Amino acid sequence: MSGEAKKEITEEQKQQLREYRESIDNIDASLVFMLAERFKITKAVGFYKREHDLPPADPSREKLQVERLRDLAKSANLDPEFSEKFLNFIIREVIQHHERIRERGEL
Amino acid sequence: MSGEAKKEITEEQKQQLREYRESIDNIDASLVFMLAERFKITKAVGFYKREHDLPPADPSREKLQVERLRDLAKSANLDPEFSEKFLNFIIREVIQHHERIRERGEL
Repeated sequence: MSGEAKKEITEEQKQQLREYRESIDNIDASLVFMLAERFKITKAVGFYKREHDLPPADPSREKLQVERLRDLAKSANLDPEFSEKFLNFIIREVIQHHERIRERGEL
Repeated sequence: MSGEAKKEITEEQKQQLREYRESIDNIDASLVFMLAERFKITKAVGFYKREHDLPPADPSREKLQVERLRDLAKSANLDPEFSEKFLNFIIREVIQHHERIRERGEL
């Protein structure tokens, strides 16, 4: 941590970074497939609610989801604020899907 | 899909929604724990780069990550645009962690 120009990266350091990146890539693949499965379900919910003329959103359900995820995040040593931001990020996408389903009956 | 007032939700519909929600909750728990593991690794990367005075970001790596996740998303029938937004959302958080590690040597 000096003010000098950055040193050239060594082979050993390259190898260490490569190993970290392999783990990150594996986790990212898992996240993408879990997200795909989650949206499959929320799309089914959207179609079900449309078919049965049920209200699109349920604020009490969302409040419970946030609280539950914050608790899970704490137990995993993940910032609870981040878990809440993450859930809101996902829910914004779900709402867009549901709006398209309601308006057009398709995605 | 009529203009009438919303009907009362039936017990059967409640049960169906409950089942969908259980699956969503299971997936959300998996996502939180995968994210916790991902941040564990990126924090280790942050400390490693600080210790060895390596540059914090690597744009060529990020470009590869985006391309790979878009391909995985397509194969999982997930919107590739969403997978890119998702990765950027995660990377923004990682950058904040790395800045804190660089500035304070801790999180």
